[in-house]
Amino acid sequence: MAQQAVIGVTGLGVMGRNLARNFARHGYAVAVHNRTEAKTKALMEEFGHEGEFLPAGSAEAFVASLARPRKMVIMVQAGPATDAVIEEFAPLLEPGDILVDGGNAHYLDTRRRETALRDRGIHFVGAGISGGEQGALEGPSIMPGGTREAYESLGPILEDIAAKVDGVPCCAYVGPDGAGHFVKMVHNGIEYADMQLIAESYDLLRTGANLTPPQIAEVFRTWNTGRLDSYLIDITAEVLSHTDHATGEPFVDVVVDQAEQKGTGRWTVQTALDLGVPVTGIAEAVFARSISGHADMRAVARGLSGPSGAELGSSFADDVEQALYASKVVAYAQGFNQIQAGSAEYGWDIDLGAMATIWRGGCIIRARFLDRIRAAYETDARAATLLSDANFAAEVGAAQDSWRDVVVAATRAGIPVPGFASALSYYDALRAERLPAALVQGQRDFFGAHTYRRVDREGVYHTQWELPDRPEIRTDA
Amino acid sequence: MAQQAVIGVTGLGVMGRNLARNFARHGYAVAVHNRTEAKTKALMEEFGHEGEFLPAGSAEAFVASLARPRKMVIMVQAGPATDAVIEEFAPLLEPGDILVDGGNAHYLDTRRRETALRDRGIHFVGAGISGGEQGALEGPSIMPGGTREAYESLGPILEDIAAKVDGVPCCAYVGPDGAGHFVKMVHNGIEYADMQLIAESYDLLRTGANLTPPQIAEVFRTWNTGRLDSYLIDITAEVLSHTDHATGEPFVDVVVDQAEQKGTGRWTVQTALDLGVPVTGIAEAVFARSISGHADMRAVARGLSGPSGAELGSSFADDVEQALYASKVVAYAQGFNQIQAGSAEYGWDIDLGAMATIWRGGCIIRARFLDRIRAAYETDARAATLLSDANFAAEVGAAQDSWRDVVVAATRAGIPVPGFASALSYYDALRAERLPAALVQGQRDFFGAHTYRRVDREGVYHTQWELPDRPEIRTDA
Repeated sequence: MAQQAVIGVTGLGVMGRNLARNFARHGYAVAVHNRTEAKTKALMEEFGHEGEFLPAGSAEAFVASLARPRKMVIMVQAGPATDAVIEEFAPLLEPGDILVDGGNAHYLDTRRRETALRDRGIHFVGAGISGGEQGALEGPSIMPGGTREAYESLGPILEDIAAKVDGVPCCAYVGPDGAGHFVKMVHNGIEYADMQLIAESYDLLRTGANLTPPQIAEVFRTWNTGRLDSYLIDITAEVLSHTDHATGEPFVDVVVDQAEQKGTGRWTVQTALDLGVPVTGIAEAVFARSISGHADMRAVARGLSGPSGAELGSSFADDVEQALYASKVVAYAQGFNQIQAGSAEYGWDIDLGAMATIWRGGCIIRARFLDRIRAAYETDARAATLLSDANFAAEVGAAQDSWRDVVVAATRAGIPVPGFASALSYYDALRAERLPAALVQGQRDFFGAHTYRRVDREGVYHTQWELPDRPEIRTDA
Repeated sequence: MAQQAVIGVTGLGVMGRNLARNFARHGYAVAVHNRTEAKTKALMEEFGHEGEFLPAGSAEAFVASLARPRKMVIMVQAGPATDAVIEEFAPLLEPGDILVDGGNAHYLDTRRRETALRDRGIHFVGAGISGGEQGALEGPSIMPGGTREAYESLGPILEDIAAKVDGVPCCAYVGPDGAGHFVKMVHNGIEYADMQLIAESYDLLRTGANLTPPQIAEVFRTWNTGRLDSYLIDITAEVLSHTDHATGEPFVDVVVDQAEQKGTGRWTVQTALDLGVPVTGIAEAVFARSISGHADMRAVARGLSGPSGAELGSSFADDVEQALYASKVVAYAQGFNQIQAGSAEYGWDIDLGAMATIWRGGCIIRARFLDRIRAAYETDARAATLLSDANFAAEVGAAQDSWRDVVVAATRAGIPVPGFASALSYYDALRAERLPAALVQGQRDFFGAHTYRRVDREGVYHTQWELPDRPEIRTDA
């Protein structure tokens, strides 16, 4: 047995345990520690044979077992627990040591912690880890933020245990301080949008086209052989083809239709609002889950009038595929804009193409599609929107007739499509020659003297609406 | 001249000056003070004849001129300036005095300030004031939060200077601590949604139906004689009928089509996300302004493919009126849900009908329509959603065919209607028998073991998706 561990994990819940096993399976001697020792012992009993584990009964013993510069990963619930663990371990560490937070921390907390620990010479790495339990064990997508210096010694180990696609690890240096957790947050926001679009597609095929869940599973399986090939489409087919054991009904029909959420989608939208990035797809997805959970409102609204119904074309499933793909491009374009804006705001200099690359495997939104996003940013690293990339523009352009047909059919049939419709409105707004925002500016100037700019001259103007002749004055000269 | 003032105003920008004049015009001796004395002198010179003003050159003189219990209104920019003024004046006040913040403070700041001042025996009243410059002078809508004790002596003065509708003042006690500023925030959020819906209506008539701005102004004037009668519709007609002096073009065509915002819409959405209230209309409105301002994205997206066009029926303007009305009901239903949720979260016990009542005049969203909301909450003070009120349900039900026609026409014509479409999706989601949220729950259980509930039995369940037979286990028993 090794005298010293290459890396350590404290917090042996299912994620921490699986991450520790992943390190051990890759030949790293890994120190393991948990606040209550029972979990450490359980890990050793059940999985101790999988590699070199160094169990520690105390924080001191854990730190003493780590080779210098020490590398330890905190895997506890995001929030106060993370601060408590940092306070416990930081006094035991030395300058140059690397403390990794592998939880779902808010990036502003990570920035605060990084600043505090930097003053003590400790490298604090906020690392987003996606892929759930299975990913932690078999290869997650890892988004580490922090100093480049820390990444030099830590990065190769993380890249080793990360998922691989075409031999390329799904782990890359993201940027300073909170960059890693920021990118992980947006990843989760995109995940919300993607799931909502899939849910709408299912609803259209079920309620609109009257297909059964197993038939819809087959449609998704077909889609999964094309450009929509992705983990979420794959598991959607699995979920839809599952029959409930107790009732013999389709599984999806016995599940209460109230979607829950843990908060990262909400954070993404709140942050986007602060950064001034329109992320309508993520917002509609977060709100759609929220609406589904308001049983009180739904109970009283169930009797409200609906339409008489709509006719769907025979190629409706193909149209839905086009709508799903186009809306998905919009959702990802919005998410990448948010990363771009966060990077600019905090000076992180994030490589957008690299983010697409490390999301290709290991994480929940892994998809073939991300190769196209990588390619788009290789063509233009500073693209203002993915929608103007030549390939995406052509694909979405080709999809738009079907996309419109689907929104029209849903509107006529009374099927809610907040994701599809809002993505289409976003697309139409971006490409509009003129937006009615000019009227909004006029209204604001009318009631609040908020001023406006003119298309034909420089300057800031206000119209004196209260005077009969409504004279215009320049307010910045 | 009176020896003592009934009330005082510090901060004599245009809002503070007009509010002081409003007090004076109603016969109150009003103390006036500004950090730089020039504004105080200017007020006296220009408007001193309007009533009894007691100008003060220092904070001490200002406080000394107020009758006990002192009542003073802070009218400075929300944020650090408010804290600075509070720090300056609080030491000069005595227990029982009333300090009013009439700015657009964030309700959480108001809660913090109220707690701090309560410890010193001072009543801190966060009062939302809407109506802009003109409202401040001629009668605003006032939303005061704080103690009932403070309202007993302060309220009658505020009700006196507030706007009146049918003889009823547009001012009422809202609730403790931050309740007043919370309600004002949601008021502004609703204002964003309402303006966006009006902007979409204009765009549909302009881009879709090829009407000219003066023709559209006439349409709005007609609408303003019916159920849409409101200040915003009124000023929309004014803005649209205005011809630019310099060019002879419609004014709306010379204004840069990038809408600006000051932050209360953003706060509303961020708060709604924390409270779990779906406010899709406000969110889409905030994002629509944001999209319009992203000149970089719009520049590269302008060439993207659009549809070949759509045909509009001859009654298109009537259909738009129906769509606007129905979408507006949804936006207000969402906003009132947010007030309901905030009230529950903070124990404010806000009277929703009273809020509708005080918004009927003075403020930006004043409208005949608010009488119907008041009536709905008189029928059921705890209604889960305004949409299920019998009158609104009937009206929206009657409007829905036109509403769908308008969304369909916009979708076919490539005109962005994020407000109309998202309101319709919200309506269709609320009234849906089943939502595809069940699929989302299945996906979440598949990739993250997040569990689900069943329609046929109590309990929390997880399916072991990794096992061949996919057995279900109950996780809460």
